[in-house]
Amino acid sequence: RMIAVTPGAPAPGGAERLAGLTLPGCANAHSHAFQRAIRGRTQRISSSFWTWREQMYACAERIDPDRYHRLARAVFGEMALAGITCVGEFHYLHHGPNGRPYADPNAMGEAIISAAAEVGLRITLIDTCYLHGGVGIEPDATQRRFADRDAAAWAERVDGLAASDVCRVGAAIHSVRAVDPAAARVVVEWAAARRAPLHAHVSEQPAENEQCLAAYGMTPTGVLADAGAITDRFTAIHATHLAAADLALLGQAGATVCLCPTTERDLADGIGPAGALRATGAHLALGSDSHAVIDMFEEARALELDERLATHVRGTHDAASLLRAATADGHAAIGWPEAGSIRRGAPADLVTVDLGSVRTAGADAVNALDVAVFAASAADVRHVLVGGRVMVRDGRHVSIDVAAELASAIREVTST
Amino acid sequence: RMIAVTPGAPAPGGAERLAGLTLPGCANAHSHAFQRAIRGRTQRISSSFWTWREQMYACAERIDPDRYHRLARAVFGEMALAGITCVGEFHYLHHGPNGRPYADPNAMGEAIISAAAEVGLRITLIDTCYLHGGVGIEPDATQRRFADRDAAAWAERVDGLAASDVCRVGAAIHSVRAVDPAAARVVVEWAAARRAPLHAHVSEQPAENEQCLAAYGMTPTGVLADAGAITDRFTAIHATHLAAADLALLGQAGATVCLCPTTERDLADGIGPAGALRATGAHLALGSDSHAVIDMFEEARALELDERLATHVRGTHDAASLLRAATADGHAAIGWPEAGSIRRGAPADLVTVDLGSVRTAGADAVNALDVAVFAASAADVRHVLVGGRVMVRDGRHVSIDVAAELASAIREVTST
Repeated sequence: RMIAVTPGAPAPGGAERLAGLTLPGCANAHSHAFQRAIRGRTQRISSSFWTWREQMYACAERIDPDRYHRLARAVFGEMALAGITCVGEFHYLHHGPNGRPYADPNAMGEAIISAAAEVGLRITLIDTCYLHGGVGIEPDATQRRFADRDAAAWAERVDGLAASDVCRVGAAIHSVRAVDPAAARVVVEWAAARRAPLHAHVSEQPAENEQCLAAYGMTPTGVLADAGAITDRFTAIHATHLAAADLALLGQAGATVCLCPTTERDLADGIGPAGALRATGAHLALGSDSHAVIDMFEEARALELDERLATHVRGTHDAASLLRAATADGHAAIGWPEAGSIRRGAPADLVTVDLGSVRTAGADAVNALDVAVFAASAADVRHVLVGGRVMVRDGRHVSIDVAAELASAIREVTST
Repeated sequence: RMIAVTPGAPAPGGAERLAGLTLPGCANAHSHAFQRAIRGRTQRISSSFWTWREQMYACAERIDPDRYHRLARAVFGEMALAGITCVGEFHYLHHGPNGRPYADPNAMGEAIISAAAEVGLRITLIDTCYLHGGVGIEPDATQRRFADRDAAAWAERVDGLAASDVCRVGAAIHSVRAVDPAAARVVVEWAAARRAPLHAHVSEQPAENEQCLAAYGMTPTGVLADAGAITDRFTAIHATHLAAADLALLGQAGATVCLCPTTERDLADGIGPAGALRATGAHLALGSDSHAVIDMFEEARALELDERLATHVRGTHDAASLLRAATADGHAAIGWPEAGSIRRGAPADLVTVDLGSVRTAGADAVNALDVAVFAASAADVRHVLVGGRVMVRDGRHVSIDVAAELASAIREVTST
């Protein structure tokens, strides 16, 4: 932890000076680690979110706990190199083929947790309740691997997950498609009893809204509000297609909305109302979600740049507020409210950004943050510290060969 | 030049194997090199394209031929590192303070041309006619530095620019704001007589359309068509806000539209109708324009990703067509139709992309191009050859320290 923050103090003897711009570590508030394996493998055909999902499911089918451990370790390594010090892993791939639980029903979750620990990343395992293949529809063969018998079984399983210094546990309602309102209430109560973060995919696609309105006469946000989900511990993922009343519900509760701009571009979701949400009092966080790319600078600026495309106005979100979404507000959304800031008492999770790369050259003290947020890339991250320990030095992970591990772990789950 | 392209041939003794994915060199079909200096310096206030332009003008005021030479050399170095082997420099900053011509009236253009030669980049100096500060409005103090006395004076000056093995000269009508229809016709005739490329900024902002309709009763594309501009040598820059008739004019002529997606995001221009343009028969090219970032992979995927945001459909532009925009069609648009392809007789302008970085790891032979276009960054470019000579090796320029030159050149034109 940081024991003092003193501007302009002389460096004590033997201190290591962090070159470039030092920022708080980033929180990647929404991740499905295994989806990194399909990067570049879903671009060949004209398609929709729903056909993309079939390709993603085919990859999920090839994953078991050992493979997931190796894949997540490599993906978390890529995150570390990008300046991410804490990940919220929205975890729904729980069970074995055809939905048969593993001997340890949390084998998958524990594989992910140990992968993060080995790389040096903090993690919140956001264990996700998933029961149905759609409103009133049984899960298909792949979805059975996501599904617990009912919400009580989900809660019982999740109570078997152990937190630690570097791991916390949160809850998710996958979506109003996959969790009925009565089950949602069980998840809400589980999270409330533990003061745990509660996440849900919300209104990513217009079809979800239409199905929800047809089934319940309410929007997804309305259904979740009715189940008691929407509090200041709640994070709506995406929230791309909201009604005005949804904005008010999220804002009045002081909830968080986690946008995943590079995934929302990739999946043709559309542009969410980030500026309007912030105006209502909602907090914003950021996630790399499907990992089409892993670059928190790109996510941060995409939030503002896509708002510019939608509104034709520059400057709804300045660099400081984009950084806050990528750091403090993201950490708070995944249950680490003490992290993501440079201040006394906060964990010493720090990232340095090279201000002398070809992308950042020309930055001065006044505009360094603007240059980092609007022009740096993950390749400009030089050093990353978690809890005061160096995890990345000079752009290399201190203990694993990330690119080599990515290549071999992806081969295991994609080659035929 | 490439003398043979033979798949699967054994390497001759002493040959150098280019690791990774080898692609044709990229053409950056629309650049204002000096605007690199304001990267990260225009993000602090809520603003519009027009207030951004004031900040850009303030930078332009600090530039003279020597400073522009140093700045362009560094910016072209950044382009080289990003895999760009040919740049179309849309050049309008011609004259000294208050519009007084330099002793050599092409001092600025020649400074830019020699900067490209020193870095090893091919260049088309697209010399730009600029006469008015708006329809019927005199140029202001800064704009006088852009302006020639009239179109005949522009043509006389531009005839003084010498082409070479690595430099060609093209023409531009800055916009219908800055060039009246009679003057546009002079530029059109100059380009037609020389079979030179002809470019114009077209419909980047709704205000331009409104002013043009009010003055001429036609859209900017309509005014340009009326002046005879729209042929297969014409490139419309941006073309964000087009009417249906504009699309037909551009498509039927087999003209090119150069989109600059990262700039169009940055300047809140909006999303242009790239898919609809291609459907009418128009060609697409790409430019980094204001250099908010310089990354042709990001430009290429942004074309498709922003189309996804606008249409909610994936796959209007596949990786091969995005690559063609970044290479062959971009080269053709700036007057190098023989370049930008890997085939016998083409200049040996080649770029290798690392397929073993954390961004690209997991690529295989089938999806390597998809991974490069949708997930690589400029930082993944390893080697760049122009005319068979190595310009970039292992991610470093062979003769200049690009980042250091950027920092010092930018300091000269921004520090107070």
